[in-house]
Amino acid sequence: MIHAVIMAGGKGTRFWPVSTPERPKQLLRLFDERTMIEQTMLRLQPFIPTERQYIVTIEEQVEEFARQVPGLRPDVFITEPFARNTAPCIGLSAVHLSKIDPEAIMVVLPADHRISDKDAFHETLQTACNFVDESDGIVTIGIHPVRPETGYGYIQYERDEFRPGTHRVVTFAEKPNRETAIKFLETGEFLWNSGMFIWSVQRILSELEEHTPELHSALMEISDALDDPNGADRIYRAYQSIKPISIDYSVMEKTRNAYVVPASFGWSDIGSWEEVYQLDEDRDVNDTVQHGPVVTIDTKGSYVVSRTDLPLAVIGLDNVVVVQTDEGTLVCPRDRLQDVGKASEIIHKLKS
Amino acid sequence: MIHAVIMAGGKGTRFWPVSTPERPKQLLRLFDERTMIEQTMLRLQPFIPTERQYIVTIEEQVEEFARQVPGLRPDVFITEPFARNTAPCIGLSAVHLSKIDPEAIMVVLPADHRISDKDAFHETLQTACNFVDESDGIVTIGIHPVRPETGYGYIQYERDEFRPGTHRVVTFAEKPNRETAIKFLETGEFLWNSGMFIWSVQRILSELEEHTPELHSALMEISDALDDPNGADRIYRAYQSIKPISIDYSVMEKTRNAYVVPASFGWSDIGSWEEVYQLDEDRDVNDTVQHGPVVTIDTKGSYVVSRTDLPLAVIGLDNVVVVQTDEGTLVCPRDRLQDVGKASEIIHKLKS
Repeated sequence: MIHAVIMAGGKGTRFWPVSTPERPKQLLRLFDERTMIEQTMLRLQPFIPTERQYIVTIEEQVEEFARQVPGLRPDVFITEPFARNTAPCIGLSAVHLSKIDPEAIMVVLPADHRISDKDAFHETLQTACNFVDESDGIVTIGIHPVRPETGYGYIQYERDEFRPGTHRVVTFAEKPNRETAIKFLETGEFLWNSGMFIWSVQRILSELEEHTPELHSALMEISDALDDPNGADRIYRAYQSIKPISIDYSVMEKTRNAYVVPASFGWSDIGSWEEVYQLDEDRDVNDTVQHGPVVTIDTKGSYVVSRTDLPLAVIGLDNVVVVQTDEGTLVCPRDRLQDVGKASEIIHKLKS
Repeated sequence: MIHAVIMAGGKGTRFWPVSTPERPKQLLRLFDERTMIEQTMLRLQPFIPTERQYIVTIEEQVEEFARQVPGLRPDVFITEPFARNTAPCIGLSAVHLSKIDPEAIMVVLPADHRISDKDAFHETLQTACNFVDESDGIVTIGIHPVRPETGYGYIQYERDEFRPGTHRVVTFAEKPNRETAIKFLETGEFLWNSGMFIWSVQRILSELEEHTPELHSALMEISDALDDPNGADRIYRAYQSIKPISIDYSVMEKTRNAYVVPASFGWSDIGSWEEVYQLDEDRDVNDTVQHGPVVTIDTKGSYVVSRTDLPLAVIGLDNVVVVQTDEGTLVCPRDRLQDVGKASEIIHKLKS
């Protein structure tokens, strides 16, 4: 059976002052009245029904998730004691799933994507799942790049199909500088690494065993402890021993079984206010987005939003993000949004 | 006797979001725990004692003044039904004073100046009052210019003293463009027009009669009505008929009796957030002023203040003013502060 694991453990500090440690990005209602996690879950249906969807997140966020997303079944959560990057998170999920369904095909999805064409999304997933079913490969969804983005990893792939809709991966490339990104685009041989993966639980566990044996040992200890009614401490200690490592670095860059299915759907990674600005079609003649009691004078290409009753005035600044909420106010040029997380962390320390 | 008239009818919209229509600039506590009007009153003592100080303001502000500045005597206010620029405001004050003391010497002061040396300030006023006493001239206080400011009027004066500390005025020049302001400074013959005036009430009333006979007629009607127990309506109607006009345009630029006493004290006109920034000595290594729960990253030459408990983060912007209060948030480059009043007015309309 096909199961979905939605990775939702991020802190979303880049979305301060809308996101906070208590209200992470996955719980934001950035585009409509639904949280990003709900949008991700709905988007999978009916291809993967709700009862085979899991949310993997860190322990301190579970309560808030349950409060903000009513109607979740109690066993929807796969809980990490604390964040250890993507490989342990995925490994833990595979251990959980293997107990529910040892033959499970596992679709791993970040909770912060925006996808415009649900049918095409399901078709792409179907292609990937069919391939996994036949060949037991490690599959990633690739996105046709539309700009020399330096914030994503890239996948070099064989242009000829290996199976219908599926291509062999030549290499994974980490986030490039701008010059390299431009070269990648010129070759036509590179896709963006979306962070969406499809594989069988057995295959990913054996890949982790091969490439990260220490992590695999800890996962096997956790697997045992899950069957032990008094195993909570063992799980905690085993997880504590794990070194943080990404799935790209631990498995994708090393495996000989990597394949890519290029996406046929519109895709955005909601990584910063930039994407929220880009996806908002409600612009004025100056290409500025304004929501709430906002006044702008000579302000071009900007995102100016007050999520409170209090007015917000921006004068004579271009390409800035100004967001006011009942948590505070952010003022940042669009090309400095990578520093919002840093500011958010300083503010969090000020408060505690 | 010497009497002081403090002009305090301004709206201070340039200080949004700290100032509001209900909390004009004169009532702000920008530098210490005292309002600007209290600072102005204290600064005059003992040269002009409290009982000979008057505040001229518009009717809608009187109640708030009385609330914010406790201990004011009931007859401290000279009340304009509505704002009509400086000439009617000064004329009305002269009419009031002439009933209290027909021989009064009248010292007119804006409520939004910051003056660093009180003794030197009193000496300058004494020089001006002595001259008025002897010659019945029209006297203005001139400020030695320290930059080619385009926001002030200028006074060209005879460098040789006419009487000790007092010079004849050659001409009044309206706010110049930058090029002209630079030329003014180069000649050494120009002072800034501070908007502080000293004259006898009889002299200013006769100057107004000569240069603005319509205004003078309205003032005489008001003078009559003040002696009429049922005169409130007459005062209102007479004031309504008055055309707004500045004292510079109506009298100073036309009189043949204009003199200037150059100030020997440090002086700032608190006209915008720029002066508040300039006068604040509490700067970080980036020449940025920070007050309240504020985080700045790579922010030079800026004024970043949160007057609430809410954090405020500014990243990667230089020479900006960002002020957050429980009325809202302002984001504005220091060289665009002249537009704050415009934004404030739009916001005020949004709210009503």
